[in-house]
Amino acid sequence: MEPRPAAPGPCPGDSRGAEEAAAASSLNPAGAEAQPRRRAPAVAAVLPAGGSGERMGVPTPKQFCPILERPLISYTLQALERVCWIKDIVVAVTGENMEAMKRIIQKYQHQRISLVEAGVTRHRSIFNGLKALAEDQPDSKLSKPEVVIIHDAVRPFVEEDVLLKVVTAAKEHGAAGAIRPLVSTVISPSADGCLDHSLERARHRASEMPQAFRFDVIYEAYQQCSDYDLEFGTECLQLALKYGHINAKLVEGSPDLWKVTYKRDLYAAESIIKERISQHICIVMDTKEDENHVGHYLEEILKNELNVYFLDYKSVPFDEKMESLIQIREYAKEVKKRNILLSGLLIYFPQDEQKLQASLRQGVTIIATLIKERNSGLVGQLLVA
Amino acid sequence: MEPRPAAPGPCPGDSRGAEEAAAASSLNPAGAEAQPRRRAPAVAAVLPAGGSGERMGVPTPKQFCPILERPLISYTLQALERVCWIKDIVVAVTGENMEAMKRIIQKYQHQRISLVEAGVTRHRSIFNGLKALAEDQPDSKLSKPEVVIIHDAVRPFVEEDVLLKVVTAAKEHGAAGAIRPLVSTVISPSADGCLDHSLERARHRASEMPQAFRFDVIYEAYQQCSDYDLEFGTECLQLALKYGHINAKLVEGSPDLWKVTYKRDLYAAESIIKERISQHICIVMDTKEDENHVGHYLEEILKNELNVYFLDYKSVPFDEKMESLIQIREYAKEVKKRNILLSGLLIYFPQDEQKLQASLRQGVTIIATLIKERNSGLVGQLLVA
Repeated sequence: MEPRPAAPGPCPGDSRGAEEAAAASSLNPAGAEAQPRRRAPAVAAVLPAGGSGERMGVPTPKQFCPILERPLISYTLQALERVCWIKDIVVAVTGENMEAMKRIIQKYQHQRISLVEAGVTRHRSIFNGLKALAEDQPDSKLSKPEVVIIHDAVRPFVEEDVLLKVVTAAKEHGAAGAIRPLVSTVISPSADGCLDHSLERARHRASEMPQAFRFDVIYEAYQQCSDYDLEFGTECLQLALKYGHINAKLVEGSPDLWKVTYKRDLYAAESIIKERISQHICIVMDTKEDENHVGHYLEEILKNELNVYFLDYKSVPFDEKMESLIQIREYAKEVKKRNILLSGLLIYFPQDEQKLQASLRQGVTIIATLIKERNSGLVGQLLVA
Repeated sequence: MEPRPAAPGPCPGDSRGAEEAAAASSLNPAGAEAQPRRRAPAVAAVLPAGGSGERMGVPTPKQFCPILERPLISYTLQALERVCWIKDIVVAVTGENMEAMKRIIQKYQHQRISLVEAGVTRHRSIFNGLKALAEDQPDSKLSKPEVVIIHDAVRPFVEEDVLLKVVTAAKEHGAAGAIRPLVSTVISPSADGCLDHSLERARHRASEMPQAFRFDVIYEAYQQCSDYDLEFGTECLQLALKYGHINAKLVEGSPDLWKVTYKRDLYAAESIIKERISQHICIVMDTKEDENHVGHYLEEILKNELNVYFLDYKSVPFDEKMESLIQIREYAKEVKKRNILLSGLLIYFPQDEQKLQASLRQGVTIIATLIKERNSGLVGQLLVA
């Protein structure tokens, strides 16, 4: 039995104010100036999510593509929500996706989200998000943050660590962004489609997300920037440089920050999510400890495959014993509604020790397969080891 | 029942000479000059495969990482072998991986492969491959090609189409390479780790593989180039420009040309391979056509999920009927040795039409799951729909 990705859980800081939570976290560097404790900045996040996903080659915009039946953007929101010191998360979606987004927020119980209408380009969407955070909006629940994070809806694996780094650097430098080494050499083509020159790979980096800015720096840059910037620009750090004369601090990010762009990236994201879920599973067993110690054997072998914890069947308040195939299937149907994928596994107990070991290894393989593949097509099956 | 990825199959051109095969393919452009038919160039390929895969975060070099139990490089070799007009494929591997590579070639029956020792850098490995193709090697079976393709061992999804394009362009221009639009903005950092400037994304491209060169152009460039180039250079097109004064023709490639670099790329590659295999599957059924037409129903529903062809069980020369669970498991164990993953599926035949349809849909879900996930952990199971 394996639980689905946990619904965005209660954040340890939820009962405190966001500012206090931020102060309690490591946002205050413990350096020389630590004694007169620095105030942690108020932090909000803006997520442009108005893209059409044309590069994906599928009709659904990539941020709404399902991964294990849950939209990609929901994983990204979950990653941001886990960070207690992010006070508000403003998501920019197109009018036609507004209702779908509201349903996602309701279904997965996302917190601290505000929706704004996306613009026709990424920069315009971000600008709309920033406007919603600026104090001059009369009827808004939002308040102007000191630092704003800009992230992509299609980068679901962002960790608190890198968010903290860009926010801290932005507070100090005015702007900061995550970077990665280049995977391919970058070249500049000539007008006739031939190589003009190639760039030295070691001297360049890919600009990734998240980025963070002192709110006034990036908001003023957007207010000053030209229609050409808003239409064709791709880089917020460039706006801070051009209009705010701020050379953003660059922060090395992890490979998992990559942007889900092509169909293959959806495959990769699904595999990463499956792998992470597999770290948190639960096996329910009907074992009698005084008989063959099969439960222990199984646990020992399975622990090589997965991080797993065991519950004894007897201690679990099941209403009915699952005695037959039909009962397992009926029970599986029922618990699937609560997002639990249930399969039955019958393990032979041969007297021969060697055969018993083989039987247990086979059982472990089946359990590991079911958990790692997480395919609902096999729900309710009685498998035999 | 589903066959494993086909072993590199016989190429339609195998019985002809490589040159003739190339002439028969579309290597001769049907343009204005087509009437006096142009001679197709002799083409070879060099694959540097000496990398250590440090970015992957796993001890195995990425080109040897298994995907569905087969090393990544074997898929790449298969993709090149399918192209009849590539006469020779020279693979550069490190001394410590030489024996493993020989075993891979033998196990997957790769053809037209020559092995050379890799150098300590990518450029040195390619140079070693080119030296093996140059005519001044006394005891070599290889002959100098007119055009040489350079490809990466970790780009398994290269299609004949793009190979043809780079070879044709290289013959005309001297050098050619596949490119892709940039996914991220490229920036240039200053010495203190801040943004110096960002590059306009629309004016730059990522340089990918395959690339192709007139052999003399690239061989002479490598002979002239400095130790610094050989140690720190990353771009063959740049060598052709610097030493041969040739502005390579740039050819738009497909997204599938990407380089397997990180662990997530292995996940993506595995999913793509699974998807492709699923296009070629075979279901063996024991249906009586005059009874309920269940076979037809199943076929109809399943065709929405997969491209599939059906064999009637009666027409297949099985030695034994698989009457019991144990027999299925024994038979599955046996055919697994031939890389066939066999599972049993028992479909209920309720009289009620609606229930029958539900049962069939469940059967289809299970079949699709088994085929798409292709996990050997479920081999020999009797599943029930």
